[in-house]
Amino acid sequence: VDAPDTVYFLSDYGTADTFVGVVHAVLRGLAPSVAVIDLTHEVAPFDVRGGSLTLAQAVPHLGPGVVLAVVDPGVGVAGGRRCVAVSVGPQWFVGPDNGLLTPALDALGGLDGTRAWELPGHGGTFDGRDVLAPAAAAICWGADESLGDEIDPAGLVRLPAPVVEHDTREGRAAVRAEVTALDRFGNVQLAARPTDLPTVDDEKTATVMVTPLPRFAHPERPRGEPVRARRVRAFGDLEPGELGLLVDSNGHLALVLPEASAASALCIAAGDLIELTT
Amino acid sequence: VDAPDTVYFLSDYGTADTFVGVVHAVLRGLAPSVAVIDLTHEVAPFDVRGGSLTLAQAVPHLGPGVVLAVVDPGVGVAGGRRCVAVSVGPQWFVGPDNGLLTPALDALGGLDGTRAWELPGHGGTFDGRDVLAPAAAAICWGADESLGDEIDPAGLVRLPAPVVEHDTREGRAAVRAEVTALDRFGNVQLAARPTDLPTVDDEKTATVMVTPLPRFAHPERPRGEPVRARRVRAFGDLEPGELGLLVDSNGHLALVLPEASAASALCIAAGDLIELTT
Amino acid sequence: VDAPDTVYFLSDYGTADTFVGVVHAVLRGLAPSVAVIDLTHEVAPFDVRGGSLTLAQAVPHLGPGVVLAVVDPGVGVAGGRRCVAVSVGPQWFVGPDNGLLTPALDALGGLDGTRAWELPGHGGTFDGRDVLAPAAAAICWGADESLGDEIDPAGLVRLPAPVVEHDTREGRAAVRAEVTALDRFGNVQLAARPTDLPTVDDEKTATVMVTPLPRFAHPERPRGEPVRARRVRAFGDLEPGELGLLVDSNGHLALVLPEASAASALCIAAGDLIELTT
Repeated sequence: VDAPDTVYFLSDYGTADTFVGVVHAVLRGLAPSVAVIDLTHEVAPFDVRGGSLTLAQAVPHLGPGVVLAVVDPGVGVAGGRRCVAVSVGPQWFVGPDNGLLTPALDALGGLDGTRAWELPGHGGTFDGRDVLAPAAAAICWGADESLGDEIDPAGLVRLPAPVVEHDTREGRAAVRAEVTALDRFGNVQLAARPTDLPTVDDEKTATVMVTPLPRFAHPERPRGEPVRARRVRAFGDLEPGELGLLVDSNGHLALVLPEASAASALCIAAGDLIELTT
Repeated sequence: VDAPDTVYFLSDYGTADTFVGVVHAVLRGLAPSVAVIDLTHEVAPFDVRGGSLTLAQAVPHLGPGVVLAVVDPGVGVAGGRRCVAVSVGPQWFVGPDNGLLTPALDALGGLDGTRAWELPGHGGTFDGRDVLAPAAAAICWGADESLGDEIDPAGLVRLPAPVVEHDTREGRAAVRAEVTALDRFGNVQLAARPTDLPTVDDEKTATVMVTPLPRFAHPERPRGEPVRARRVRAFGDLEPGELGLLVDSNGHLALVLPEASAASALCIAAGDLIELTT
Repeated sequence: VDAPDTVYFLSDYGTADTFVGVVHAVLRGLAPSVAVIDLTHEVAPFDVRGGSLTLAQAVPHLGPGVVLAVVDPGVGVAGGRRCVAVSVGPQWFVGPDNGLLTPALDALGGLDGTRAWELPGHGGTFDGRDVLAPAAAAICWGADESLGDEIDPAGLVRLPAPVVEHDTREGRAAVRAEVTALDRFGNVQLAARPTDLPTVDDEKTATVMVTPLPRFAHPERPRGEPVRARRVRAFGDLEPGELGLLVDSNGHLALVLPEASAASALCIAAGDLIELTT
């Protein structure tokens, strides 16, 4: 396998500080010929689970290289989470072992053929700069021997998977799916896939009842009223203002409104559940 | 002509999701030696016209390469807008045929010598990743034959041009110009150019009356009172707090306040009209 | 010394306009093999001092190259601030001579061995594109002779340094330190360094009284009540909700809360003073 020549970088660093720029500078110094591609740095601060879902969606679309991922509330915690490097096929991952990486590994096919190492030397307040970026650079040189002791990938931390629950009581065909992300356009991405809703497909139009179930109920966001959505193939099958359910560009079900925000219309946040009933 | 080695990328994708990063990854995979320069990804969601004006301002400052532009509310609409590639001199454009590209073509001198192709294969929910980025990469390899059928560039979609109206009734020398953009510093860019206001020039100071005409009048933003602006050559000719009218870095007239936001002071939004009277 | 092959770019341009992209395009045209690393473009508009402190923190972590820095309210002021190039060892700086660069020079060891030049040709409204980026490119070619007349680096503009005041009256060991920056995570960076608080060190836990002193007092943000902070080595030494004082990744003292915003908890803004009493 050739040494990687691309680093894909995701974090919760934001771009208002120079964290991202300084990590780029460290990579430039240690591995000057490597291209660094920013996936996003706007994961919500400290939101390991949200970052892990974002990363898992992106990785199937990446070429060979090193994914440098940093959402790391445990940075600087003595005896806290490990920093790890993980290899699976031509893809490498470098990041904290706090659950951030495992959904991405699953998205690439699980732990078969995966190897992992515990990186030495963490413990400062900016491990992204001081530990993780140097490890990514070392992988690009092929200097794998600097990665520390090999560990069992089965021991990598896992966070609870996004909720997808099927309810077939009393002849219902309902599925409850977690809202994994809202994108900039207000599309509501669900943890469910088309196979979770087998009674409808995108070949013929079907109506689905959509009930928002806010995870943390409060007066302003009670259990939502059921609303009607049309299961369609593409945005263009919808009338203006018509709620649609389609398969998004990552293969998940998503609630959408043409040229408008379905998230705002439904008053939905990431982490809420959506009940789909046919 | 050499194959392009630079892609200039503009979109309304924002940077909170991984849309931009994934498109970069696709380009890295298909055309690894190409440099990708982000022009901006903060065009307002779905704002084709705003994006087209932003792009038209930037293109005169770009070197040879491929402009990949995506503001595309019609993505996924069966039988909807085409995806196109356009070449003019050493510059290429790839994007939806919804009016996003034509102002930029005009800014480069119009359609003389322009050729255009209709890209095959669109119709998913993420054509930027699946159709447009691969087409940009193909152009960088010189694989123009993959671009599909050649079409007539005169048939490319055009949106209404920004308003510039002259009013010479009763001996007035007035021009009404659309606010095409507000920049981060609150400078108010107008569609008008210095030649639209021939009675004043920047060689000698002149006073111009400025009347904001909100496009969508409502109680909180009525027709503005006329205010005085000084036609000056540069920011430095203005006193603190003094409204100025100058030629901005793109050759357009702009209303400015030194170290402050003229847009906020005048309560102006993009799309409003400004009447300038001498 | 080899010609630089990296440009580090910091500005207050934001990323919603195409200022940053156009400067990248100019650099790509003039110096195609040079890598451009964005440090940040979200310095507050016109905030020269804030930008200078941000830059000073980043530069110790950069490799050899040209720092292109633009926070420039005086752009377009005839007879206003100069545009300058400065060299110190393998590092170059290009920017306005308004105080933006000097803290970074100090962070690299001061003016010994520093040389400076006044760039010709400024005076438009977008010197970043028209003067500074071309100068950065010229330095990357080794075309130093185009930089204009050499000037005395001792004459470069300096802004007031961040406040660090010691108060030893009546046997107190107090230090008043300016809040130089708040980062995305709400960590409060102080101008003081550990040596400014010699009676406590990070080897053993100590309690420090923290009194916020808003620089511009007003009813909603009166002089703060003293609160207790624990001087610790790392985030992980703190309990949830416990305020800590630690040495951050740039060697400065910082007030932090584990997985929460110390800035919000203390109602602190950049420019405020913090009194630390042991």
